[in-house]
Amino acid sequence: MYNALPALEPLIEQLNKLPGIGKKSAQRLALFILKRGSVYAEALVDAIVHTTQDIHFCKRCFNLTEQEYCNICNDTKRDSHKICVVEDVVDVMAIESAGEFDGRYHVLGGVISPLAGVLPADLKIDELLRRVDEEDIAEVLLALNLSTEGEATMIYLSQFLKEKGIEVTQIAYGIPMGSQLEFIDQTTIGRAIASRQKL
Amino acid sequence: MYNALPALEPLIEQLNKLPGIGKKSAQRLALFILKRGSVYAEALVDAIVHTTQDIHFCKRCFNLTEQEYCNICNDTKRDSHKICVVEDVVDVMAIESAGEFDGRYHVLGGVISPLAGVLPADLKIDELLRRVDEEDIAEVLLALNLSTEGEATMIYLSQFLKEKGIEVTQIAYGIPMGSQLEFIDQTTIGRAIASRQKL
Repeated sequence: MYNALPALEPLIEQLNKLPGIGKKSAQRLALFILKRGSVYAEALVDAIVHTTQDIHFCKRCFNLTEQEYCNICNDTKRDSHKICVVEDVVDVMAIESAGEFDGRYHVLGGVISPLAGVLPADLKIDELLRRVDEEDIAEVLLALNLSTEGEATMIYLSQFLKEKGIEVTQIAYGIPMGSQLEFIDQTTIGRAIASRQKL
Repeated sequence: MYNALPALEPLIEQLNKLPGIGKKSAQRLALFILKRGSVYAEALVDAIVHTTQDIHFCKRCFNLTEQEYCNICNDTKRDSHKICVVEDVVDVMAIESAGEFDGRYHVLGGVISPLAGVLPADLKIDELLRRVDEEDIAEVLLALNLSTEGEATMIYLSQFLKEKGIEVTQIAYGIPMGSQLEFIDQTTIGRAIASRQKL
């Protein structure tokens, strides 16, 4: 497409780096920011600056927080003997919204994926193992996404964790609630059958 | 969804105002900006600040520009007797990329839509009529999107323009190049038949 405005390029380029925002969407967003005027642009800039200044990672679990420790780690009513291991901060939010888990979390920051250049040292694995040693942990619940890399990472972690003599569990993967079998993919159905439970 | 981070809300709220970005996408973008770290956040902020400071509307045609007049208005090789009237800056880019129009533009900033609260006074219509008086215009080409409001706006404009004794034209609406009739909607086919031309 003809570009009437080379001066808009730097903004398009930065917006283009956001997840799910292609070149065309970035152009639309840049034009919107421009046309919406300076009040919106200033509010957006303020929000970005304050957010990135005020929010950082929890020293214990690598969830996001404005303090030294996140509000889950700080919550004395939570069971400090259980750790739920997740890939990402959004997974903490997803599991919290279910309200079923009452322990603390540990955010790995990804899964092991040699092809994408993510090695165990790039994740918070050492920190997890240290927590298990230091925090009197009874159970580690692995709740990574069920990709090939996610499964490999869970196997990798469980080897180290089992050596420490603690209980290692995994969230159940199967047919989602309320869905119809005919619309579920083969892999999920296969998994659900392999993981069938006695009634 | 459980919100672990009230501090993230202002950024989510601002991102949520962008076109096509819902609450969930805004949350994803906010987390991305946060996790990507301060280098990216600063580059994004810089781009927003510079773009909104440096770019404004062309004094003549309301296209975007970094100078007083846009680079199309400044181009002495363009035919200054023809004006193409469009809704938005993106339409200028779309028409320019076709390379078929060699005149100047006039960006209305929308179409008349009383239901959405957009009245003729909210658009650059007076400015268009003044240009026709002052700039020795021979032809005005209307190229608004063919919505109900777009058509109504073109009829509204053509009344005033024809009074001034200049040629008022409209871009052709019909079957897009390379498409198959069976996949074209009824309204477009109807329009293409009504606008049929002699061979």
